[in-house]
Amino acid sequence: MKAEFINPFLDSLINVLEIMASTKLKPGKPILKRNEIAHGDVSGLIGLVGPDTKGSLSISFEKKLALSIMQKMLGENPGKINEEVTDMVGEITNMVAGGAKNLLGQKGYDFGMATPIVVSGKDHTISHQFDGPKIMIPFTCIDGKAVIEICFDKA
Amino acid sequence: MKAEFINPFLDSLINVLEIMASTKLKPGKPILKRNEIAHGDVSGLIGLVGPDTKGSLSISFEKKLALSIMQKMLGENPGKINEEVTDMVGEITNMVAGGAKNLLGQKGYDFGMATPIVVSGKDHTISHQFDGPKIMIPFTCIDGKAVIEICFDKA
Repeated sequence: MKAEFINPFLDSLINVLEIMASTKLKPGKPILKRNEIAHGDVSGLIGLVGPDTKGSLSISFEKKLALSIMQKMLGENPGKINEEVTDMVGEITNMVAGGAKNLLGQKGYDFGMATPIVVSGKDHTISHQFDGPKIMIPFTCIDGKAVIEICFDKA
Repeated sequence: MKAEFINPFLDSLINVLEIMASTKLKPGKPILKRNEIAHGDVSGLIGLVGPDTKGSLSISFEKKLALSIMQKMLGENPGKINEEVTDMVGEITNMVAGGAKNLLGQKGYDFGMATPIVVSGKDHTISHQFDGPKIMIPFTCIDGKAVIEICFDKA
């Protein structure tokens, strides 16, 4: 998987959270290891399908970061991961994938986005079932941690 | 969402588990309610994208059913949801979506499949972020419970 496939997803995540929730995420070192697994308390997942490519994107948030984003975006903090929080994570996932789709479309890589799915459950793990390279990038900010994982390659 | 979109996924799940793992699932009553949420200990998720449609599929298993399928398919029961179990759930998800894709293709509905993602974590919940109808169908068998949820409609 090429770096030019990855950066649009990272840039899009950073932009969406900065613009929508005044939250500045700081990216950590990308991890290419096959047996690292993303953890989170609430995760947005979306499938990506193009004429010659397929893949998937997940964005996992620690509970305290998800609630802080909720507070900043909507002015309310429900104190737990309820339906409003899962809807917000689904919306963020859709926006991040949509932003990356626009950026990649300009480079000639076209793909469609499936319906986002949001998973919630304390410290669940996410495993992208894909033989090719998978890239995981941890993010930190003052309000908690997030991790994005992307696989995207030839179908 | 039409019944003709749903039945191929159900038939495919029942066939895959019967053929691959001698496990006979008995479907319960389909649930159309918007605020019912699928629960499970390990879930396979896959995005679906066609020229005119998009959607997503999730299949969630209770831990004891996932381990029983593992035992029957591969002759070993690791006693916990490890990487072999998540790989097996990813493979089942791929086979179920692939089987439904073939059946729907014969009816003129074409779609591509994204990369499957497997989530594990005790009693997590799955929320398909989709404005249209979502169909959830619980299954029972002697070894435990499973639930399939599908949304698939005009893009």
